[in-house]
Amino acid sequence: MKPLFDYDKNQGKPVTNWSDLLRADILDGKLIAEAVHLEVKTEVDEYVNETNKSPTLAVVLVGENPASKSYVTHKEINCKKVGIVPEIFRISNDATELDLIKLITRLNNDETYDGIIVQLPLPAHINEDSVIASISPLKDVDGLTVENLGLLFGGFPRFVPATPLGIMRLLKDARIQTSGKKVVIVGRSKLVGLPLSALLLKRGNDGNATVTVCHTGTKDLQYETKQADILIAAVGQPMVIGETMVKKGTCVIDVGVNRVTDETKVKGFKLVGDVDYENVSKVASLITPVPGGVGPMTVAMLLKNVVKAAKISKKMK
Amino acid sequence: MKPLFDYDKNQGKPVTNWSDLLRADILDGKLIAEAVHLEVKTEVDEYVNETNKSPTLAVVLVGENPASKSYVTHKEINCKKVGIVPEIFRISNDATELDLIKLITRLNNDETYDGIIVQLPLPAHINEDSVIASISPLKDVDGLTVENLGLLFGGFPRFVPATPLGIMRLLKDARIQTSGKKVVIVGRSKLVGLPLSALLLKRGNDGNATVTVCHTGTKDLQYETKQADILIAAVGQPMVIGETMVKKGTCVIDVGVNRVTDETKVKGFKLVGDVDYENVSKVASLITPVPGGVGPMTVAMLLKNVVKAAKISKKMK
Repeated sequence: MKPLFDYDKNQGKPVTNWSDLLRADILDGKLIAEAVHLEVKTEVDEYVNETNKSPTLAVVLVGENPASKSYVTHKEINCKKVGIVPEIFRISNDATELDLIKLITRLNNDETYDGIIVQLPLPAHINEDSVIASISPLKDVDGLTVENLGLLFGGFPRFVPATPLGIMRLLKDARIQTSGKKVVIVGRSKLVGLPLSALLLKRGNDGNATVTVCHTGTKDLQYETKQADILIAAVGQPMVIGETMVKKGTCVIDVGVNRVTDETKVKGFKLVGDVDYENVSKVASLITPVPGGVGPMTVAMLLKNVVKAAKISKKMK
Repeated sequence: MKPLFDYDKNQGKPVTNWSDLLRADILDGKLIAEAVHLEVKTEVDEYVNETNKSPTLAVVLVGENPASKSYVTHKEINCKKVGIVPEIFRISNDATELDLIKLITRLNNDETYDGIIVQLPLPAHINEDSVIASISPLKDVDGLTVENLGLLFGGFPRFVPATPLGIMRLLKDARIQTSGKKVVIVGRSKLVGLPLSALLLKRGNDGNATVTVCHTGTKDLQYETKQADILIAAVGQPMVIGETMVKKGTCVIDVGVNRVTDETKVKGFKLVGDVDYENVSKVASLITPVPGGVGPMTVAMLLKNVVKAAKISKKMK
């Protein structure tokens, strides 16, 4: 059988451990994200040279959700690495929707901030859609406003949500061809599934895939996932994609980040994806780990969006 | 074999012509569109009672494209049928982009007009995207502006392009269940394929389908189309979907309207769809004819959008 991807697993070296050959290669998002960081750092340096100002990202964090706090810390650290100034606005859990919208309006009007993100989810008493709608589309580096969604689906992407953008970059940098391939996405969210399908469908070598979107309403999920040359799991539930759902040789991209209890860990939990990594690795040809796969790519593409926002605000190309 | 759709072809009557049983039933878009017209007419009457004004549609027609002229005439006739006032703005083929944008700006600012459509395609020297961008999103009854696309993909549809809307309504009124069904769309345009996939994927009984989008880059189109419970052809080429591409019992929706030479006709051409109707009818269980299928539904849903625009302008529900 001709392999699905033109990819020399052993890179010409003699095989020393045969059991390794039976396992998928790891698509190392962390490594590829490092390369994107270097690229962003160069862009930031040029920007600073030209404007005497560092790109600045305002991060709004509401409440005490531990996962949200951890994500924000990650973003903060990575911003600093590439020369972007992060500024965290911590809002108490009992703030009102109006408080939040007032803060965002202030950030919209303050030239200091090139990009604004609101860490989701928000507490239940706050309407996320109203809050997102209050972000200036020109500072909306998460790409969630109606204007940026419309530009994406209309074929003129400005700010694209960082997770689908990160997956596209991962596939590109790992030289995984999408054109003519069958891609199956499990999950129809407007943050991942829908924008990713638009990116994968578009004309040109980066896209041009045949795309199927599955979800909780799909009748025979296993039948659909087994059709995939590239399988993208964005379900949000731990390890729901098992080895019987994956065709031999498939490339598997795991978008899930789920906390499951693990007494052996200091924190009391570990992170697992939507894919049963251990077992699916025995069938797939390529697979992203969790953590270290899509996650770092998402952060890296957010940084790229911030620099883009900074350039837009200065009317640079 | 259990039929794909719970549909009593012979409606309890005794079979008189056995050969008919071997052919697909016709999904009569014209008939269903008539029902939508009655619905719109009632809405228009209520609107006129309340506001003493008829909903008004401005139609901009550039140049002499015969198909465009014929579409505009259809829209004009159907507007009048339900009490919507159509006003046609005929612009010569050598008008500039700026001329056109100036006209649209005037229509945007004139309260007389509730909806504005620009008949596409435009002459090659005019940038369609710039012209569309100049339409006020609140009068954009074709749903083509960035704002209306963003609202659709963000999950808050305002004006949805009339063709996908018409297909959804046709399926609903013909009681063809989409939830849990496999839908294959051939065509990835932002006018039909992409918005239709968003509508079919959304949660709730009207959508909730598993959707595959195919296109010119699809490797094995026949394999994909044969997976469909509902097959939607939006290719724009005459009769490319043949009987070998359709699974037995499938529901086939033909979006194509292609003019092909026919010396026996007075006009010298006839209209055919993207589907080989004659032969696919022998395999499918339900099929839309061309003309008389998706076309009339598209016009009917445009009328619904015009009334919606009129109500929005008066801040009615």
